[in-house]
Amino acid sequence: MMTHPRLMSIPMRLRAFASSASAPKWEGGVSMVQGASRGIGLEFVRQLLEKNEKGHVIATCRDPAKATMLLELKNRFAERLNVLPLDVTVESTIEESARSITERYGSLNLLINASGILSIPGVLQPETTLTKVQKSSMMLAYEVNAVGPILVIKHMWPLLRVGGGLGTERDVAVVANVSARVGSIGDNRLGGWHSYRSSKAALNQLTKTISVEFGRKKDPVACILLHPGTVDTDLSRPFQRNVPAEKLFTKEFSVQKLLNIINNTKQQDNGKFFAWDGQEIPW
Amino acid sequence: MMTHPRLMSIPMRLRAFASSASAPKWEGGVSMVQGASRGIGLEFVRQLLEKNEKGHVIATCRDPAKATMLLELKNRFAERLNVLPLDVTVESTIEESARSITERYGSLNLLINASGILSIPGVLQPETTLTKVQKSSMMLAYEVNAVGPILVIKHMWPLLRVGGGLGTERDVAVVANVSARVGSIGDNRLGGWHSYRSSKAALNQLTKTISVEFGRKKDPVACILLHPGTVDTDLSRPFQRNVPAEKLFTKEFSVQKLLNIINNTKQQDNGKFFAWDGQEIPW
Repeated sequence: MMTHPRLMSIPMRLRAFASSASAPKWEGGVSMVQGASRGIGLEFVRQLLEKNEKGHVIATCRDPAKATMLLELKNRFAERLNVLPLDVTVESTIEESARSITERYGSLNLLINASGILSIPGVLQPETTLTKVQKSSMMLAYEVNAVGPILVIKHMWPLLRVGGGLGTERDVAVVANVSARVGSIGDNRLGGWHSYRSSKAALNQLTKTISVEFGRKKDPVACILLHPGTVDTDLSRPFQRNVPAEKLFTKEFSVQKLLNIINNTKQQDNGKFFAWDGQEIPW
Repeated sequence: MMTHPRLMSIPMRLRAFASSASAPKWEGGVSMVQGASRGIGLEFVRQLLEKNEKGHVIATCRDPAKATMLLELKNRFAERLNVLPLDVTVESTIEESARSITERYGSLNLLINASGILSIPGVLQPETTLTKVQKSSMMLAYEVNAVGPILVIKHMWPLLRVGGGLGTERDVAVVANVSARVGSIGDNRLGGWHSYRSSKAALNQLTKTISVEFGRKKDPVACILLHPGTVDTDLSRPFQRNVPAEKLFTKEFSVQKLLNIINNTKQQDNGKFFAWDGQEIPW
């Protein structure tokens, strides 16, 4: 195991010097994927490890012991993959992950917030009409889809500021929040899905709000929102019936497109909302 | 006291006939102002009663016994003002209000959701930086500013469908949700106020979502969002320091402008977000 680079103790004004005068401590960069047990998150972990043979990945999920597909990747990639328990609804687990990442790596170059809920049988059902809107569903969707990712960014921010683009081909660290086109207010023509739509609109507003602060502080961090398309995952499965075959993407295709956007993210993309094909989505 | 018109028992297809064949039961219309104990809500109640000498107003707030200024209006306007207890965080109080309004009036022509929170000393403080974001504040702002108004609309919807524009000069009933320009994602250049901004963005998305359903069902109801400007109320008082005098509106001025927008609302305005001066605000 590599030793802790302690980059965090270097004052901001020395960082540019440190990064040019010495090789980055983590060649290939350190990426964190939050919500990595399945679906898009799991696929991000796989592609990040396969496509970058030096990069390190921290994959988090609520219960690593049950994340069998993630543990298979752990067997394959050993030291380059670090699996940590994190539940976005329990802030102490986020803080614990931040402590663990600080000790082991000392920096982050990429944070992907991939967790999200749309439906849970018997608990949360996407609403087809206003009369079916339930307070408990609204609060749960907001807690998981909007508040959770923001708390993760709050605690990983110091690590991202240290990391910036060091060890990667980018100039900046990237925070990528997986949002959805149905979170767009301007693009909302079908209605319904009140809980999910409003939680994603809130996530979009929070990401924009955070991006303003990153920009003002001249942090080497850009925060973006991503729409993966309709992807064949557990999340979308109950709702795929009316999706034309050519619009239902494989995880492999969607994540490949999204990683392309992430890898090309520049400072001026901070605060933007991109679809899988690179098109900007209206708020 | 007038008797209950029981319009709700008339099937939809007979309503057009009923409305053209008979005079409206409530000349001047029936308006509901939710969050009416002070600030903008209280001023809406006052102007609705003063400017329309036949209209009836239902004013709701959490604790009517403590709403002294509202009770003064009750003394002045007697039968034309009906004060009911309603806490947007307790759905049963919303249902109880809907039952009471159904019994006494049987219809609604206007619903103004004026309640909202920005700061509560020791509980909720508008965030100046990401590091100050607290889960409890986020959840509370969302519960009060986004979920609450939507639950009120959910339970008042049958009354609004019956009312439509009957007894008013409009063709439609209006749902007016008091939002704020800082809820606009596209217009967010300053950052900060994470809880408030995201709760208002969520309210905007929910209102848009509901408007789509109203439109599809061809309901005689239009749902709009209003930005009152920065108004000299308890809500804005701790944050008025940097507001130029000419941009700090009196309640009287702002509500007069907003009522003008409401009174001129047409079906095609359903789902729009207006500032006090009638300009549309980007999402």
